[in-house]
Amino acid sequence: MRKMVDFSFTEEQSLFRETVREWLAKNLPLERVRENDIKQRLPKDLIKGLGDLGLLCMTLPEEHGGAGADWVTTTIAAEELGYADISIALPVFFLVQASWGYVVDRYCTETVRDDVLRKAARGEAFIGIAATEPGGGSDVAGFQTTLKRGEGHWIVNGEKTYISGTEECLELGGGYFCVGYHDRSLGHRGMTAFYLPLKAQGVEVTKRFEDMGRMAISTGGFKMTDVVIPDEYQLGETGRGFYLTMEGFDDARLLVSASCIGAAQRALEIGIDYIKERRAFEQPLARFQGIQFELADMVARLEATRALIYKTAWILDEKYKGKIGALEASKWISMCKLLAPELAFDIFKRTMLWLGAYGYTKECPLEMGLRGVMSYCIGAEGAANIQRIVIARETLGREYTRTR
Amino acid sequence: MRKMVDFSFTEEQSLFRETVREWLAKNLPLERVRENDIKQRLPKDLIKGLGDLGLLCMTLPEEHGGAGADWVTTTIAAEELGYADISIALPVFFLVQASWGYVVDRYCTETVRDDVLRKAARGEAFIGIAATEPGGGSDVAGFQTTLKRGEGHWIVNGEKTYISGTEECLELGGGYFCVGYHDRSLGHRGMTAFYLPLKAQGVEVTKRFEDMGRMAISTGGFKMTDVVIPDEYQLGETGRGFYLTMEGFDDARLLVSASCIGAAQRALEIGIDYIKERRAFEQPLARFQGIQFELADMVARLEATRALIYKTAWILDEKYKGKIGALEASKWISMCKLLAPELAFDIFKRTMLWLGAYGYTKECPLEMGLRGVMSYCIGAEGAANIQRIVIARETLGREYTRTR
Amino acid sequence: MRKMVDFSFTEEQSLFRETVREWLAKNLPLERVRENDIKQRLPKDLIKGLGDLGLLCMTLPEEHGGAGADWVTTTIAAEELGYADISIALPVFFLVQASWGYVVDRYCTETVRDDVLRKAARGEAFIGIAATEPGGGSDVAGFQTTLKRGEGHWIVNGEKTYISGTEECLELGGGYFCVGYHDRSLGHRGMTAFYLPLKAQGVEVTKRFEDMGRMAISTGGFKMTDVVIPDEYQLGETGRGFYLTMEGFDDARLLVSASCIGAAQRALEIGIDYIKERRAFEQPLARFQGIQFELADMVARLEATRALIYKTAWILDEKYKGKIGALEASKWISMCKLLAPELAFDIFKRTMLWLGAYGYTKECPLEMGLRGVMSYCIGAEGAANIQRIVIARETLGREYTRTR
Amino acid sequence: MRKMVDFSFTEEQSLFRETVREWLAKNLPLERVRENDIKQRLPKDLIKGLGDLGLLCMTLPEEHGGAGADWVTTTIAAEELGYADISIALPVFFLVQASWGYVVDRYCTETVRDDVLRKAARGEAFIGIAATEPGGGSDVAGFQTTLKRGEGHWIVNGEKTYISGTEECLELGGGYFCVGYHDRSLGHRGMTAFYLPLKAQGVEVTKRFEDMGRMAISTGGFKMTDVVIPDEYQLGETGRGFYLTMEGFDDARLLVSASCIGAAQRALEIGIDYIKERRAFEQPLARFQGIQFELADMVARLEATRALIYKTAWILDEKYKGKIGALEASKWISMCKLLAPELAFDIFKRTMLWLGAYGYTKECPLEMGLRGVMSYCIGAEGAANIQRIVIARETLGREYTRTR
Repeated sequence: MRKMVDFSFTEEQSLFRETVREWLAKNLPLERVRENDIKQRLPKDLIKGLGDLGLLCMTLPEEHGGAGADWVTTTIAAEELGYADISIALPVFFLVQASWGYVVDRYCTETVRDDVLRKAARGEAFIGIAATEPGGGSDVAGFQTTLKRGEGHWIVNGEKTYISGTEECLELGGGYFCVGYHDRSLGHRGMTAFYLPLKAQGVEVTKRFEDMGRMAISTGGFKMTDVVIPDEYQLGETGRGFYLTMEGFDDARLLVSASCIGAAQRALEIGIDYIKERRAFEQPLARFQGIQFELADMVARLEATRALIYKTAWILDEKYKGKIGALEASKWISMCKLLAPELAFDIFKRTMLWLGAYGYTKECPLEMGLRGVMSYCIGAEGAANIQRIVIARETLGREYTRTR
Repeated sequence: MRKMVDFSFTEEQSLFRETVREWLAKNLPLERVRENDIKQRLPKDLIKGLGDLGLLCMTLPEEHGGAGADWVTTTIAAEELGYADISIALPVFFLVQASWGYVVDRYCTETVRDDVLRKAARGEAFIGIAATEPGGGSDVAGFQTTLKRGEGHWIVNGEKTYISGTEECLELGGGYFCVGYHDRSLGHRGMTAFYLPLKAQGVEVTKRFEDMGRMAISTGGFKMTDVVIPDEYQLGETGRGFYLTMEGFDDARLLVSASCIGAAQRALEIGIDYIKERRAFEQPLARFQGIQFELADMVARLEATRALIYKTAWILDEKYKGKIGALEASKWISMCKLLAPELAFDIFKRTMLWLGAYGYTKECPLEMGLRGVMSYCIGAEGAANIQRIVIARETLGREYTRTR
Repeated sequence: MRKMVDFSFTEEQSLFRETVREWLAKNLPLERVRENDIKQRLPKDLIKGLGDLGLLCMTLPEEHGGAGADWVTTTIAAEELGYADISIALPVFFLVQASWGYVVDRYCTETVRDDVLRKAARGEAFIGIAATEPGGGSDVAGFQTTLKRGEGHWIVNGEKTYISGTEECLELGGGYFCVGYHDRSLGHRGMTAFYLPLKAQGVEVTKRFEDMGRMAISTGGFKMTDVVIPDEYQLGETGRGFYLTMEGFDDARLLVSASCIGAAQRALEIGIDYIKERRAFEQPLARFQGIQFELADMVARLEATRALIYKTAWILDEKYKGKIGALEASKWISMCKLLAPELAFDIFKRTMLWLGAYGYTKECPLEMGLRGVMSYCIGAEGAANIQRIVIARETLGREYTRTR
Repeated sequence: MRKMVDFSFTEEQSLFRETVREWLAKNLPLERVRENDIKQRLPKDLIKGLGDLGLLCMTLPEEHGGAGADWVTTTIAAEELGYADISIALPVFFLVQASWGYVVDRYCTETVRDDVLRKAARGEAFIGIAATEPGGGSDVAGFQTTLKRGEGHWIVNGEKTYISGTEECLELGGGYFCVGYHDRSLGHRGMTAFYLPLKAQGVEVTKRFEDMGRMAISTGGFKMTDVVIPDEYQLGETGRGFYLTMEGFDDARLLVSASCIGAAQRALEIGIDYIKERRAFEQPLARFQGIQFELADMVARLEATRALIYKTAWILDEKYKGKIGALEASKWISMCKLLAPELAFDIFKRTMLWLGAYGYTKECPLEMGLRGVMSYCIGAEGAANIQRIVIARETLGREYTRTR
């Protein structure tokens, strides 16, 4: 059979999308998303349901508890979760684990798999990412966390903040992909990654932040004081921590983009339903050209961005097959992360305007979506400017890079 | 002395701005704005303070309790209030009364002045606008409220919704500029305006909406069932209600625009302080050209919009002196309302991105501003598309208008 | 072998792209594009070369003189031609024939194939589209051209204007896909398509327009006075002319989009070469973040649009296989035509700014590209607003359409 | 009489605007602009006419041959010239002399006034600006031109390029404001300005560039080989050349902005006339909401930018009265130059789209405007990024500047 450019999904993938969408339509209608947003928590049955569906840590090999899913399929899941939970809370819970769980699994010992990954895949633990530091932002190399060598272990000191899922992690058990300097003099090559069980001795979980949105999942931080990390919790080789972090960022950014696009699709559909129904000047709003043209622009931009995202998911699969270089894949992923959250935010804003005063109230789901998507504009897994730096670097060549 | 184009404010105006800014800096720091936003109410002392400063209903003649302020001066107040209360709650309280109080005063009897306006000017009553109806939005002519003629009074039936300040009005006393059809067959000329005391018999105040933002001022609605409105509560001539509504919209839209610009200015200043302080890649963020260029674009657009707003305030003053036509003034005002809220929203969004994860938390004031400004993008006093309709109509001529 | 989403091109397609690019690099360097632009003509050897390469009318079946190329492959050719000839003149020559030749071929008799198509495929005739009428623009149904029934023929009267390739057509021989009303009372179903040999008796070719750009290909018009069109020149069934026109528009719009993207890619590369070379403030321009960020935005938008275009090319192939509906395909094609020319124009403009005063001179190729791409923004094969109407119609449903 | 914010022009200014507009309407209709564009020259009678009207070098004191005009009045002239000559050729001729003539006059000897300024004010000489150097662009400090000290004169070597008006200057007589290093080790303080008569010995005028637009005024360059510049041709103090250049840039940028706005106004009017006339789908285009909304956005942005420009003209007048600092004035001027050309370009582009295929031909004036305005986007008197650097520097403080 002759190989062809083929933009259709496989039957398995289409069936998978349908299954996920149906389950979410039934178990997570928008009313329930609002309820979660107000109660500021994700109900247990939802998490368990995702586990039963095989979505949690679906990127892990089956023998490690996952579904061995490729990135195109995982992107489908991320998109559908965004479509269902426009507040972005459940997508965060999902995608942090699908991406960082994957990176942890690639570089961890069987002990870590037993301690956290296999459980996380069942919804019985949480595996997250703790990158940001109090003085830090997107400048990974500026981290202050340090690892000192002990006998068969590292002793870690430092602080992480603006971490997704700290309360969920405390409740379910589990921990974080974490990184720090074992030798600052080596620069990027002086960082080492490790798995940090959140309940390890010396870890003090700090307050939950009051965020603007995605209220149903917690954001917090923790301090590490002389935390002992046994060698079997180290991830990858000593000195590879920076590169593992970049790998995880890439995987997560792809899924972030997909969730944003899913949420944007839902916003459009809510908007379309409204403008067909609502009348002004004796016409349904949908018949006004001023609104139609805005709709057309949104639809076109959404489909272009979606096409880019699935192409990029395919590129990521190719990267992990060794057919495309890691930096080339990073460039494509950064394009997705640059465009998708901004587009989604814009679509939420514009559709809110269509709905008028009703759109501004909490009776309407859209405002929840705008607040949620804003978190991914602002930077979870890297702000827009970081994406621009990556794209420019990979387009121009590293010799033109200048971050300092 | 030769008349000259002169963009400098008068000494009185400059002094007035300074006084207002100082009072607000002292009495309404951002921490207090956040407190109001959380408690969902405007503290009494603030309202009383505005009254003592002479800001409440400042557009009214002194003999009716106001300050006889021109629109340029009132625009200064609206801008400063937006600068202080970026959540836009206090600006709403102020500008609704400065604009609609003015229109009420122009067309009301001495009775109404005594019942509400003189008190409102002291902060002891509230005078608002009740335009929107449940099926209505921006299509004023589509209203369902009806006035039936009685002996020396009208009998009113109808419902108004998404009304600012219902709780404040209940608490302080006062009522609303209101409009309905006394004769639907006459179209625009079949509407009549009246003052509705909120505690009038037959008025049932409905629930407070949970809004996305500007939490410290209430949004609600009310039903009117056989409400008796004595003739001395009628505003203007019978059949002029539509035109009075348009007049009030214009006055309010100018002040809305000014408050948005004030809030945007504050957002910029918060952003600038942060990027000067915060370091990444061993530099303050303010030294990165990617951020500098974005800042420059915002500053330029902000100053252009501010210049437009003050020119328009002057045009409104000229209109009330009979030197510029009402429709010409409407066109200018619609330009302000089209540009200012969108620009302010955009500035809040971009500066939030500078602040990263911190900007997304409620520890930072910016998210409160984005939520608040969104209310003026969405449409209080007319959505963006209504402004576009006005501008196009006044540019092309009415024969090209087509709203239905 | 399991079917997969697959974004890689086939080996044949990749080889084809390489062959086309190499041939164009050798035979149409930018200096020659400039020469054509100044001389206002396409050299014969170029046209013959395209014929020898099998690009002309490549969409026709091999037995009708074409290459039997699918739309993905034809899209590759259109992209490469835009990359080489950023003035868009040669792409116009190519794509008009690849799309309208295809539609003519689908509905014509063997006589028409012999008279024009087989020759056009060798570069020895030209087959074009004559849609626009003097009072017309995008409103196909408003056409004035009429067909009256004669014995075994139609008698045609009317005028067409802003037609691409009239001089080339006169020189090479050939003619146009043309449409007119045989029965105006039937509306859309009252139009019939036919092949008009440009040298037919009664055809008077009017002046060549002085266009802003794409100077190397002519734009003209013609009047038809009692032109006899024998029945074997009729295209498709009587009354299907409107629908055939829409089909041709769709095919052409896809290729237009691809050529724009190709030209934009070239502009970016010219820009990148320049900013790497040119120094200001003791740095290559490429090291300034303000320029890097703009570059990143352009790269991301370009790749998203390209991904959309190739997906849409695949959709068009599926349509012709009967797997996707025609209206669904139209929606996707209109998205491409909405986004691609605007993006290309924007990229030309921004890269011209990078090049400064040099970019404004005719020594630099970019200005030629901006002028050329503008023709596709402005509307060849349908302006942006027409695309918006199509997208909105297919998204909302026809009952919300309102063009009059 | 109490001082007031006053946005109305003085009677003199209004009368002046009317006079200029009428003269231009009569003497420079759009057909003639096209003729100039094609013939690539400005007719003598036009130049003489401007002189007779008192527009040439109108900023000079009357005793030096000018009209002693303030910057607000000069801005009016620049706007009206852009309105009349949308190709921007005559505005260039005017504004280069109004701004650089002014700076030359402020710092020159009576000899220079006699040699060039008094004549230029009558249209009998040309005084221009020669800033850019072959390797140079916007980085003034990177210039290569050198001044060596002789006995009572400087000996100048260097080359200038992309200079406006070289052919006009050769024909009429006159010369250029010019600057070079007398001592490179002193940096910005090592540059000295001088008046260069274009016919001085050792000056070789190089070719005329083929520009994309503003064809009726020449762009060229010249080489200076051991040119003797007597001390009475020096402008300002030794070492002040950089600062004089910045002063001239500021004055010119204001007028550039005004001409762009004038041209944009004309484009809008041409577009409005067309959409009122042209019908599609049985309606004038002006009745389509899609077009109306776009028009409204353009009108609003145009008025905001115009308001900013006149405020800034007033600020420049205040600067020269010593009431506002030079750097503050620069910030405002850079805002104008950042916004106005881009807006004008955008308005030309959008109105061209309204006019469809006709808009793309040279029968329609708009394409000439788009090409002309592009020259001011691209950078005459400083590209957009330079304006951003100035605005950011003056907003953040110089310690955050980083151009290298």
